[in-house]
Amino acid sequence: MSGLLERFRNHDRRALARLITYVENRSPLGQQALSALFPMTGRAHLVGITGPPGAGKSTLVNALIGGYRGAGRTVGVLAIDPTSTLTGGATLGDRIRMMENYADEGVFIRSLATRGQMGGLSLAVSGAAHLLDAFGFDMILIETVGVGQDEVDIADAADTTVVVQVPGLGDSIQTIKAGILEVADILVVNKADRPESRQLVRDLRNMLLLGDHGEAMPPIVSTVASDGTGVPQLIESIDEHRQRLEASGRSRQRRARRLLREVELLAGERFDDWLRQRLEALSCEPTGEALLSRRTDPGSVAARLVDEFRGADQPSRP
Amino acid sequence: MSGLLERFRNHDRRALARLITYVENRSPLGQQALSALFPMTGRAHLVGITGPPGAGKSTLVNALIGGYRGAGRTVGVLAIDPTSTLTGGATLGDRIRMMENYADEGVFIRSLATRGQMGGLSLAVSGAAHLLDAFGFDMILIETVGVGQDEVDIADAADTTVVVQVPGLGDSIQTIKAGILEVADILVVNKADRPESRQLVRDLRNMLLLGDHGEAMPPIVSTVASDGTGVPQLIESIDEHRQRLEASGRSRQRRARRLLREVELLAGERFDDWLRQRLEALSCEPTGEALLSRRTDPGSVAARLVDEFRGADQPSRP
Repeated sequence: MSGLLERFRNHDRRALARLITYVENRSPLGQQALSALFPMTGRAHLVGITGPPGAGKSTLVNALIGGYRGAGRTVGVLAIDPTSTLTGGATLGDRIRMMENYADEGVFIRSLATRGQMGGLSLAVSGAAHLLDAFGFDMILIETVGVGQDEVDIADAADTTVVVQVPGLGDSIQTIKAGILEVADILVVNKADRPESRQLVRDLRNMLLLGDHGEAMPPIVSTVASDGTGVPQLIESIDEHRQRLEASGRSRQRRARRLLREVELLAGERFDDWLRQRLEALSCEPTGEALLSRRTDPGSVAARLVDEFRGADQPSRP
Repeated sequence: MSGLLERFRNHDRRALARLITYVENRSPLGQQALSALFPMTGRAHLVGITGPPGAGKSTLVNALIGGYRGAGRTVGVLAIDPTSTLTGGATLGDRIRMMENYADEGVFIRSLATRGQMGGLSLAVSGAAHLLDAFGFDMILIETVGVGQDEVDIADAADTTVVVQVPGLGDSIQTIKAGILEVADILVVNKADRPESRQLVRDLRNMLLLGDHGEAMPPIVSTVASDGTGVPQLIESIDEHRQRLEASGRSRQRRARRLLREVELLAGERFDDWLRQRLEALSCEPTGEALLSRRTDPGSVAARLVDEFRGADQPSRP
């Protein structure tokens, strides 16, 4: 382990990749590495990029990479595949192809997919982001499909949340739009060369006017990611948002909240690990049978387990 | 509380509605009621109905209600709106309209939306299902939009999982199909009067042939929910699945697993409640500051909190 940390500090990309894998698999080694490397973190700016499938998020990420590299900034990318919890990652192939395009040392692209608990993926993302940060990347882009709960998570994970919309995706988008707008720091209308894009910009602006956005209404940036149109404006908007955050002190606030959220998930993970082991033992015991025959109920069993955890491993009292 | 339980046992629907609200809000009163009423549960058959937005799930649920009522069976419906975590329930209006159509005492329809943790919604669903079961409904239909992680949850929550697909929804469906198939006990191709529906049935059948389905390949039922076509066949398929489950002993297995999963979530909820209170106190303390300045790291804080939980509220040892 200390050899791996040494290599990481000497800027060995394979050591970075290995440590991300540990973190992704929620191995104790990963947590150990994160504790050791945490003092090296805190410099990178984290940009969450979310939106529905088909919005062109990957193309946009590629365009952003080009823009940042042109300005001499290094970029780490985390692509999250929530749909792959069962299938093992349908889009992983795309990522790997995308990665092959970069012999560039200033870019590191990684897909993340955990099969475990909800919190497991969040912890994998925050852990991997810490590692990219400690490794020295200036910008960290976290890309995820925005469905249901996920926009909320990306907003928890990033300094700046970019929500990508696209004209002509129809009904299902309408239903989540309201929630999406609440977490957006910047709205992107991608594929803005489509005729319906102006209407979408108008609709978004009207919805923003109805909402409550605290200090600043999120800007709407129109892009055509595939040919780079609007990408410089998006980069500028992200930088401006960062400056606003830092000037107002909200940056520290957000980051403190994010770190405390990570503490919460890590503590929950420890409890869950204990609980799962205990439950595996229980299901061989008559507890399953007692529940099925209604001799006890889930709430009572849960209360007993929590008591056990609180009392367990304590030296027995006289 | 005992008055409410009394009224529930006397078949007062308002008492049922009130208790579901307690369970939905994760109030301790709800858990108390569940413990008291749990011996009355275990008779109902739980059917999960999932699929993408626009697949016609609500129309199908309406058609199923009609079919079951025609056969003299009573039906409880739980409609889960995962997209409403931020917006407060876009489809709630539809539900209420749907409910007004039923003066029928043999039907009870309820929307569920919790803003809390992932596990909170699962617990609200299982708790509400226990209440409907204890109240005496024969069939409990649990309807949810299938996005990302949710199909997995519905499969955990139900005896029979019905996955609804619809022709012509395009790309985003393709990416989750593989995961969806793994949890389906029955596949429904709804809007089967559309010309592309035959191709969808063929595609689904081919995908099923590629998969590993243990004992039985899930049947594919074509329906036109809006005019009732195929609904008797779907009801028959659900009954057949139930009989197969019970004959093979897998029904008890599934139910035991489900109850133990509920134990897990309830125990986790207790830990989380403690943790959240503790963290709220912490964020006023120098911990946030210590994290921001990298004097400590999230893993170390989490370990300390878990130790505190295990030691807390124990009588001090001599």
